Amino acid sequence: MVVKVHGSPVSGATQRALAVLIEKGVEYEFVLVDLSKGEHKHPSFLSLNPFGQVPAFEDGDLQLFESRAITQYIAHTYADKGTPLITPHDPKKMAAQSVWMEVEAQQYDPSASKLMFELVIKPMFYGKPGDEALIKEYETKLSNVLDVYEARLKESKYLGGDQFSLADLHHLPTLNYLKGTKGWGLFESRQHVKAWASDIMARPAWLKVIEPLQK
Amino acid sequence: MVVKVHGSPVSGATQRALAVLIEKGVEYEFVLVDLSKGEHKHPSFLSLNPFGQVPAFEDGDLQLFESRAITQYIAHTYADKGTPLITPHDPKKMAAQSVWMEVEAQQYDPSASKLMFELVIKPMFYGKPGDEALIKEYETKLSNVLDVYEARLKESKYLGGDQFSLADLHHLPTLNYLKGTKGWGLFESRQHVKAWASDIMARPAWLKVIEPLQK
Ligand SMILES: N[C@@H](CCC(=O)N[C@@H](CS)C(=O)NCC(=O)O)C(=O)O
Ligand SMILES: N[C@@H](CCC(=O)N[C@@H](CS)C(=O)NCC(=O)O)C(=O)O
Repeated sequence: MVVKVHGSPVSGATQRALAVLIEKGVEYEFVLVDLSKGEHKHPSFLSLNPFGQVPAFEDGDLQLFESRAITQYIAHTYADKGTPLITPHDPKKMAAQSVWMEVEAQQYDPSASKLMFELVIKPMFYGKPGDEALIKEYETKLSNVLDVYEARLKESKYLGGDQFSLADLHHLPTLNYLKGTKGWGLFESRQHVKAWASDIMARPAWLKVIEPLQK
Repeated sequence: MVVKVHGSPVSGATQRALAVLIEKGVEYEFVLVDLSKGEHKHPSFLSLNPFGQVPAFEDGDLQLFESRAITQYIAHTYADKGTPLITPHDPKKMAAQSVWMEVEAQQYDPSASKLMFELVIKPMFYGKPGDEALIKEYETKLSNVLDVYEARLKESKYLGGDQFSLADLHHLPTLNYLKGTKGWGLFESRQHVKAWASDIMARPAWLKVIEPLQK
């Protein structure tokens, strides 16, 4: 039975789930949820995710939501297939991956995704410019976070250790949307952050995820 | 060798780590980091957590930070000791726990911890009242989240399933600080949320965590 992803190709959280499925070489069915039509607030979708957000995921009778729970489920369930994205058999390595997954969620994403909203989503979907005061505020916060990343990536090729893992992958959607905005200077001005971002954004699985957006 | 928690008894994130250690019956050494003296920004602490926040954790030469990464590490490493807080051997149960851990971090905590800041931290530590407009904003967001919790807890005794798990435990610090504020009405007015909160806040391990605060 093929697993199902309900989501939208423009949704960063959806992209996170797709990237893992493609890295793993797991066959999936994509069910489009049209956000512009409010389909994510319809009862049929709310029965998959009561918060009314994409993505949602089905594996037989198992229904999941929250992108980072979905990625972890897939990485565990298909541990032996495709790219290894976590190392549950090695508790110390796993602990480092877990720390940096938390850092993405708790330290990086709160400012990166709000900055992305001001620099990308507002102009693109609402036809108005981002708020300059907010942009400055989120850039300052993100800059502090990226100082820590620069020091980490000087010692370690990837955030979670020597190997690419979910801790890196979870950053891809915000990196991709911030690239090409003036916010990208924060990444480019830091040598190791820049090299890391280029490396993970060039992964074939990721290029496949964003292919539909290039048209 | 005894594990070490570096933190402060008033810090909610520190309390999360301590609650797990006590549930598990794992012996630990507590190293006080005096936030009022800025000890969390001293180089010796920054070498444990480059973000300069408590808690930090040591198990031999393994150094961790981010409270939710620490709780998961302890729950996995001491799987066979004390209260089972996750079920890694049962991937479907584990997936549900993982979804609701993400819900705590992504949906609940952003509004609950900001509401706590306005209602508790500002008056207690900065001697000024919370901002009424912000309080209203966070109460509205939290209220929407708790509607989903009420429906979930009508079906399932705990968030992650039939058993108490990390998905519940991670809420304890914010629940404890919000209790006794006017924000508590949001919890009390929902029958199943209220029963769940009373249940988990009465756990002996949690009462032990907050003992030092009662004096
Ligand atoms: N924490 C959630 C966030 C999901 C999310 O924000 N999805 C957006 C699209 S990227 C959405 O559905 N937005 C519509 C809404 O929130 O109403 C996850 O990681 O899955
Ligand atoms: N996401 C972190 C949050 C840690 C945190 O915010 N700690 C607070 C005390 S509860 C702190 O150290 N604040 C001082 C600061 O941020 O400068 C975790 O869960 O460990």
